[in-house]
Amino acid sequence: MILPKAMEDLITEFMRFPGIGRKTAERYAMHVINNFSLETTETFGNAILNIKKQIHNCPNCGLITDRELCQVCEDDIRDESILMIVESSKDVFSIEKSGEFKGVYHVLNGVISPMDGKGPEDINLSTLWPRITDNRVKEVIIATSSTQEGETTALYINRVLKDVDILVSRIGYGVPVGLNLEYADDLTLSKAIENRKKL
Amino acid sequence: MILPKAMEDLITEFMRFPGIGRKTAERYAMHVINNFSLETTETFGNAILNIKKQIHNCPNCGLITDRELCQVCEDDIRDESILMIVESSKDVFSIEKSGEFKGVYHVLNGVISPMDGKGPEDINLSTLWPRITDNRVKEVIIATSSTQEGETTALYINRVLKDVDILVSRIGYGVPVGLNLEYADDLTLSKAIENRKKL
Repeated sequence: MILPKAMEDLITEFMRFPGIGRKTAERYAMHVINNFSLETTETFGNAILNIKKQIHNCPNCGLITDRELCQVCEDDIRDESILMIVESSKDVFSIEKSGEFKGVYHVLNGVISPMDGKGPEDINLSTLWPRITDNRVKEVIIATSSTQEGETTALYINRVLKDVDILVSRIGYGVPVGLNLEYADDLTLSKAIENRKKL
Repeated sequence: MILPKAMEDLITEFMRFPGIGRKTAERYAMHVINNFSLETTETFGNAILNIKKQIHNCPNCGLITDRELCQVCEDDIRDESILMIVESSKDVFSIEKSGEFKGVYHVLNGVISPMDGKGPEDINLSTLWPRITDNRVKEVIIATSSTQEGETTALYINRVLKDVDILVSRIGYGVPVGLNLEYADDLTLSKAIENRKKL
């Protein structure tokens, strides 16, 4: 039995997402057909269409934003002497929710992963070095995940920063080993930032 | 910290789906931002926009289709003397995959659920009665789920059909109790159809 083409198309689109297989994609497509009004599908369709048009990475720190500079880089109150390096914008949102950190961020938008053929040139490092050498930054906290790729990335950055007169620390105890930063709860993130250790 | 509006909008849209909470919706929105090209978001957006415009319920049996009549109702080879009543179009796709059934379908697009205030008038029954009394149907198989609502619906249909000279059966052993039909595997569905019992 052949599914209606429009449904087959939508199933294919849903299967683009991580963790969504054929069965789940079929359920979501059926949900749209049965439960969405024409108006709802239009709102949804436009939300998808808009997102790539309105959102880009902050040219300074890499955080996603819909302004010219992101809200952290635009904020005069943030402490520019302390810079936290994270893997993704999602991590910034998590850390901001914990309310523990008042410095600025640098978002790598990826990790070094030799297994996937991703080297230092494939992540957002080119805009990191000038930020560190402009003398405003006194401390760098490397807050990549405690996965193998996160550790590799942390070691790489630490090695490059060895010759610069700057305190480099790694995010502290608290984040469970092997867990992606985005799944950590607020308290764990607070602890991890408080207990950061010098590399 | 406020998320960019376009991202917040998309998160809200993803949370419309069953089983998608805030965290998962955020992950999907981030996935669109990080991994989709502008072209991909356009394909996705259009797939959503098209589905309600191109798909409707077959006026004869209730199955979703993009033609005037669905492919089962249009098919001359199907045995019109045996009619299977199911809850949703998804069930038809599952049963067709098992290849066991050569009759026709009637899709209720819902179940009788007094707890949710859904009575017989809220499901697709009005087009069922004329199909049964037009003398072509000799046997009706009620294949609603073995949930409480599915059983209630089956009992209701059976009671209405009591005075009609027609064999009414319920889908047989094989479908695990409490499981929605769409999660059953092909073999279980085959067995269930083969072992149907007269009500």
